[in-house]
Amino acid sequence: MRPPRLRQLVDVLAARLGTLGVIWDTDGKAPYETSARHGQGHACAVVRPTTREELFWVVEQLLDADTSFVVQGAGTGLVAAATPSPTGTQWVISTQRMKQSLEVDVKNRTATVSAGYRLSDINQAAARHGLVFPIDLGADPTIGGMVATNTGGARLVRYGGVRENLLDVRAVLARGPASIVGGQRALRKNNTGLIWSQLLCGTFGAFGIITEATLKLHPLPRQTATALVATDSASAAIDLLVSLESDLGEFVSAFEGISRNALGAVLRHGVQSPFSQAPDYAVLLELATTMPANLGMDLESLLTDWLEQRLADGLVKDAAVGKPEQLWRIRHGISEAIQGLGRMIAFDIAVPRSRFGEFREKSVRLVEEMVEGAVVYDFGHLGDGGVHLNVVVPTQTPDGAVNALRDAVYALTVNGFDGSFSAEHGVGPYNQRWYAEYTEPAKLELAAALHHHFDASRRIGNVRLDNQTQ
Amino acid sequence: MRPPRLRQLVDVLAARLGTLGVIWDTDGKAPYETSARHGQGHACAVVRPTTREELFWVVEQLLDADTSFVVQGAGTGLVAAATPSPTGTQWVISTQRMKQSLEVDVKNRTATVSAGYRLSDINQAAARHGLVFPIDLGADPTIGGMVATNTGGARLVRYGGVRENLLDVRAVLARGPASIVGGQRALRKNNTGLIWSQLLCGTFGAFGIITEATLKLHPLPRQTATALVATDSASAAIDLLVSLESDLGEFVSAFEGISRNALGAVLRHGVQSPFSQAPDYAVLLELATTMPANLGMDLESLLTDWLEQRLADGLVKDAAVGKPEQLWRIRHGISEAIQGLGRMIAFDIAVPRSRFGEFREKSVRLVEEMVEGAVVYDFGHLGDGGVHLNVVVPTQTPDGAVNALRDAVYALTVNGFDGSFSAEHGVGPYNQRWYAEYTEPAKLELAAALHHHFDASRRIGNVRLDNQTQ
Repeated sequence: MRPPRLRQLVDVLAARLGTLGVIWDTDGKAPYETSARHGQGHACAVVRPTTREELFWVVEQLLDADTSFVVQGAGTGLVAAATPSPTGTQWVISTQRMKQSLEVDVKNRTATVSAGYRLSDINQAAARHGLVFPIDLGADPTIGGMVATNTGGARLVRYGGVRENLLDVRAVLARGPASIVGGQRALRKNNTGLIWSQLLCGTFGAFGIITEATLKLHPLPRQTATALVATDSASAAIDLLVSLESDLGEFVSAFEGISRNALGAVLRHGVQSPFSQAPDYAVLLELATTMPANLGMDLESLLTDWLEQRLADGLVKDAAVGKPEQLWRIRHGISEAIQGLGRMIAFDIAVPRSRFGEFREKSVRLVEEMVEGAVVYDFGHLGDGGVHLNVVVPTQTPDGAVNALRDAVYALTVNGFDGSFSAEHGVGPYNQRWYAEYTEPAKLELAAALHHHFDASRRIGNVRLDNQTQ
Repeated sequence: MRPPRLRQLVDVLAARLGTLGVIWDTDGKAPYETSARHGQGHACAVVRPTTREELFWVVEQLLDADTSFVVQGAGTGLVAAATPSPTGTQWVISTQRMKQSLEVDVKNRTATVSAGYRLSDINQAAARHGLVFPIDLGADPTIGGMVATNTGGARLVRYGGVRENLLDVRAVLARGPASIVGGQRALRKNNTGLIWSQLLCGTFGAFGIITEATLKLHPLPRQTATALVATDSASAAIDLLVSLESDLGEFVSAFEGISRNALGAVLRHGVQSPFSQAPDYAVLLELATTMPANLGMDLESLLTDWLEQRLADGLVKDAAVGKPEQLWRIRHGISEAIQGLGRMIAFDIAVPRSRFGEFREKSVRLVEEMVEGAVVYDFGHLGDGGVHLNVVVPTQTPDGAVNALRDAVYALTVNGFDGSFSAEHGVGPYNQRWYAEYTEPAKLELAAALHHHFDASRRIGNVRLDNQTQ
């Protein structure tokens, strides 16, 4: 079948979806073409269905027209998995208008949500019932994008990521002809074999397009207590984590490591230091409880008492218990504070927590040895071994040196520490190269079988988990 | 290739594995032929490798000999997925001797364990470091069996099941020739595409044989508080759950419903009632905290205070806070107490918590209408919507009536309440029939593609997730 002319397909789609449903002018397409961090694409056109049935029909039209497409939520992904290729031949299916329903079942502690709703929408609806969907991110992605990406975030140490909080999905498969699969079984226990949610979560849209998700909600904490703590080293921070989990395990809702450099950058950027001396390694720790204070436990006093004991036994060098917003501002201010210091090379990696101290030492040394003038401003979700190793190199550093650095850091992470080259951002065109390098052959073979099963026409997305090029 | 004579294959295997490694006499085979609840099989022979490499080699030998096999852990599964078929042509590969290593990484809060270790072994090792693998079951299965089955249990409401606590697996695939895949990445964040653990967990050995698993451990609670509580109805018990989670969310570690009939049976069986009046519906609730009492919170006082408020506002009719062992004895005594009252028909189902009250009413009515003299002694993991609907029917009830009852209860559960016909026991020959009935065609097609990919020779196990007969 020969592809119809673009204009013809646009007319067919607009006849059903209306003029808001199809965008093909240059200005209108622009917001869908830029990746949040890596790369600039070029879309043939953008189509914006509003319902599951419309999406299904759109996929059929695009497949019939022999047209390749990529699915995009809010466009907040960091590996360019939802950015159209630069060729200008790929359509974008945007799920942003898919907002048919957002239902909270209070007694079941679940929400069933159309793919186009944002994380903030879900949490606004949940909060009205004293509930929360506890994936804590800097961005505000759509739920469809979150499921496809398996987003993690800062509170995974307490609640798990999307995968652990996903009960069911509905999806459109492009397995020709297109089909709608899955459901909305809001069950915590359902041990009946293969699960769409597990296959479609964290496979980046390669095998199907999420239309709805059923999510576990959690009771909204009524008290939180936050502290910024100074320790001797990254290893000492892990010892502190072990002690904290042992004593106050179920309260821990964040344990974020902040290196001396990262803290320094934020403080130079206008935030006041809570410490008299710059610590070698700092930790932002947060406790949370659903318990109302009138039941007899004041969480902030509890944390203060506990930290005083840790000061006494030397595990902690200094500590400031304080207003959550102020302390989180230090943690969230790092990215902004290091902008403009040079060229930023970001690594989203993870290692076993027990090896974090050693990893940090070796990776910082590696970076400093490989690129002259490079400075590491690392921070991370220590509670789950996640490390955002942000490296600032002089702006004139050649691309070759940057690429060599990336290769070397990922090799150290994966080969040296049994770590991950993508802890939470997933796989997309940005890091397909390291996916190819570090994925075992048997997994690529499985992915090939699944690509063949779900996407025989090879028209969906720009992530190939079997590592074949489009 | 023609299959060699049994004796020949036994000699080949015994030459490498030793005489303890191969069992083919009738008495020796017997323990491997009986399912814990459903069905009696007949094994051709039993082979018991001790290492991953031996297992790999055994699978190759059996595939070469064109021999079919089933993999078995401790034999505690309840749907006969690990029981050899009655034909006497299937080998059993027992993983019970696979105990190469059990390593606890305290700072990472993980354990890496060979498939043959039991749940109790892991917890003994973890407890020495103040940690626990918190899957709470009546049985003591092997870790390989737990992963393949995705076991749930009584504390899932707090910790999740095996799936949520599984970081990585190693496995032997029978994809000819056999191969060893996966690893031991002890990472909480690793968002790099397909995950063996997610595919092999809860697919009952159909696609591969677990050799090692890397598990999340949790800090061991230092205080628990347990109460048996009387409520007006199953629906009122759910209201109590919502209130408890809202106030004391992170402490809740079990919320088990016990029906009037089930409680009555236990009490008649010699356990003393903590209540003056038999309640319509009882709940065993358990709180747990890692917090030492000397940090200022006594969990039992907290629970007592909270329950007094619920007595005051009428959500609770009566309550006994007491020794955990005594109260759990009531819950664990149900199965024994109803033995001998007639023929027991067990249902392991789940429904959304919000619909539990209505489901209970309708299912009890259905049972009583369909089988004369039938009595429902239900209890369940209410915190996660799990219901063990145990029905005792008169011993002379014909099989046809029992089968019709099973069909009707599962239909009500799945079609009427968006529930599950197997909440935690998984899928095996016992319930393959309902799997066939309630699994959507697209999922069967996916399973067929996976069976083809992993097991082209169709020699592994006796669970067919594509629903094709052997």
